[in-house]
Amino acid sequence: PLIAILAGDGIGPEVTAEARRVLDTLGLDLSYEEGLVGGAAYKAAGHPLPPETLDLARRADAILFGAVGDPDCDALERQFRPEQAILGLRKDLGLFANLRPAKLFAGLEDASALRPEIARSIDMVIVRELTGDVYFGAKGIRTTADGLREGHDEMRYDEAEIARIARVGFETARTRKGKLLSVDKANVLETSQLWRDVVIEVSADYPDVALSHMYVDNAAMQLVRNPGQFDVIVTGNLFGDILSDEASMCAGSIGMLPSAALNGSNKGMYEPIHGSAPDIAGQGKANPCAAILSAAMMLRHSLDLPEAADRIEAAVAAAILKGARTPDLGGTLSTSAMGDAILAELG
Amino acid sequence: PLIAILAGDGIGPEVTAEARRVLDTLGLDLSYEEGLVGGAAYKAAGHPLPPETLDLARRADAILFGAVGDPDCDALERQFRPEQAILGLRKDLGLFANLRPAKLFAGLEDASALRPEIARSIDMVIVRELTGDVYFGAKGIRTTADGLREGHDEMRYDEAEIARIARVGFETARTRKGKLLSVDKANVLETSQLWRDVVIEVSADYPDVALSHMYVDNAAMQLVRNPGQFDVIVTGNLFGDILSDEASMCAGSIGMLPSAALNGSNKGMYEPIHGSAPDIAGQGKANPCAAILSAAMMLRHSLDLPEAADRIEAAVAAAILKGARTPDLGGTLSTSAMGDAILAELG
Ligand SMILES: CC(C)[C@H](C(=O)O)[C@@H](O)C(=O)O
Ligand SMILES: CC(C)[C@H](C(=O)O)[C@@H](O)C(=O)O
Repeated sequence: PLIAILAGDGIGPEVTAEARRVLDTLGLDLSYEEGLVGGAAYKAAGHPLPPETLDLARRADAILFGAVGDPDCDALERQFRPEQAILGLRKDLGLFANLRPAKLFAGLEDASALRPEIARSIDMVIVRELTGDVYFGAKGIRTTADGLREGHDEMRYDEAEIARIARVGFETARTRKGKLLSVDKANVLETSQLWRDVVIEVSADYPDVALSHMYVDNAAMQLVRNPGQFDVIVTGNLFGDILSDEASMCAGSIGMLPSAALNGSNKGMYEPIHGSAPDIAGQGKANPCAAILSAAMMLRHSLDLPEAADRIEAAVAAAILKGARTPDLGGTLSTSAMGDAILAELG
Repeated sequence: PLIAILAGDGIGPEVTAEARRVLDTLGLDLSYEEGLVGGAAYKAAGHPLPPETLDLARRADAILFGAVGDPDCDALERQFRPEQAILGLRKDLGLFANLRPAKLFAGLEDASALRPEIARSIDMVIVRELTGDVYFGAKGIRTTADGLREGHDEMRYDEAEIARIARVGFETARTRKGKLLSVDKANVLETSQLWRDVVIEVSADYPDVALSHMYVDNAAMQLVRNPGQFDVIVTGNLFGDILSDEASMCAGSIGMLPSAALNGSNKGMYEPIHGSAPDIAGQGKANPCAAILSAAMMLRHSLDLPEAADRIEAAVAAAILKGARTPDLGGTLSTSAMGDAILAELG
């Protein structure tokens, strides 16, 4: 299998290098090709997602993504900004299913802003739709009848888009506690009303999964009040963006959390949920765990190597439990020393 | 001044009655008129916002609102559901500025899911736009070219709508720490890009206020990680809905938090942020503090009686500090006994 390595900006290269070291240790039959992405690509090639990178991403079996975001690019027109690379890859490759696990690693109870007894209960997966919603609807700036500037972005989902992400939600629920919560704003939005209707229709195929519904404002509240009540949440692109970031912080450091973005045939892009952290880039201070755990998700979801994925996840958990800590976790280990600690657990 | 009392459903009438008792004690020159709203209005008059109620709301100088929401109405068509009364009043009366203070009352450190030292730092006001955004844009269910059902809702803001809520944000910041944070999703949404541009334009009139910007996903994360960093937040209707509920839970019980929805001439609707809580309705278990604090906001913002507002707020704080607790706060006081405790502080 071919893995595209898109390390990107800021701490992306450092953390991706550690993920690569971990993969190399496992003696798997993988080949790697690197591509430019984000601000680094803009600077070198004039576009955050150059044609060669897109071509590589299309050819690859899976993509290991670092992070993008570069203060030098903040003033660029939207189409040239680093984030557009992420949006472009998601859309072009049809990566509609974003899996965002959020759980507290044993030993990190003190890293969460929540009370330890509440933080300890966090273990959920947010299944976020990633190629539709107000992200990709018709948008622009127009002039009103009164001559005013008006910004507009259309939120939209058709029933096929809703049904396919709902199925990912139900399938994910089956591998866990058999409970699925769908989050919407059906009391205000027609898109949400259709979302809710279609999720209920799809639920007929999953009689073994208990489906419930919650409004997004209430979900944002409950994620703080009692996050342990959540197991698998399925939601749209915008609500998923907000809720998954909130959930990750409830679980402590964002330096620990991976994510996967999948299409319908197990091709995926794997990415830490943290950003490029330009303030600490190049200093060996970044936590590589999220990147390493993203590599584990890649093995599980795109390469059908669940045992190898389990081994990596167990190694990260063991290193953390023994006290390995980068600065974001209150420790002093460098990025590569944290990688060493995890490699040591892999034996 | 004429106060419209729209007590609504569930615990609405109980908590509004306590707010009324508090107002009566202050010997102010107010007259009251009651109107039906929500599920109660639907059952009695066939509509959640009957014409008589709308007429009363238009005539009144301010509206004291309880809560709406009734499980009996869940299956009704959207236009007849209780929440439509809230949306209808906001739109008809032009109540575009929603002020949502979130702070932890001294003594309630244990009510928050956050660590006490973090919870104690919470003291912010969220200024949410309330009559625009994806709430009120063109919406519906249409059929795609492929014959699929498609839900759509347009997010939109024009520059005048953005500028007037921005001004409320800047003015609010001036009464506090002189810091304003605008929350948007300008890396994805054109509406947000215009939002950001216009807020920056308006900031020229407020050189004494320090303006900053944050993406909504990051804000949802930071509200958990370090809520003490926030003072005044200005944002759109949808993001404000989500973030203000999240912030309220960081601050402990939603039973403590009031809100105001204002138009351009200080007319307002004042409402606890909690819902109708049908499970405990009629049992004297509801916390009346949010309703009482909403009445205080009414005195301050619509009736220009800031001293009376201060007195009420001080009385609530004192009662809480002395240990008065309804069940939501871990205590045993009934709704009216909590009212008594606050009245006792008013002397
Ligand atoms: C960078 C940005 C466009 C992106 C999003 O909003 O989807 C990010 O926040 C994420 O969640 O992956
Ligand atoms: C009831 C609902 C329509 C309303 C909203 O979304 O605005 C509520 O959640 C609120 O925040 O006042």
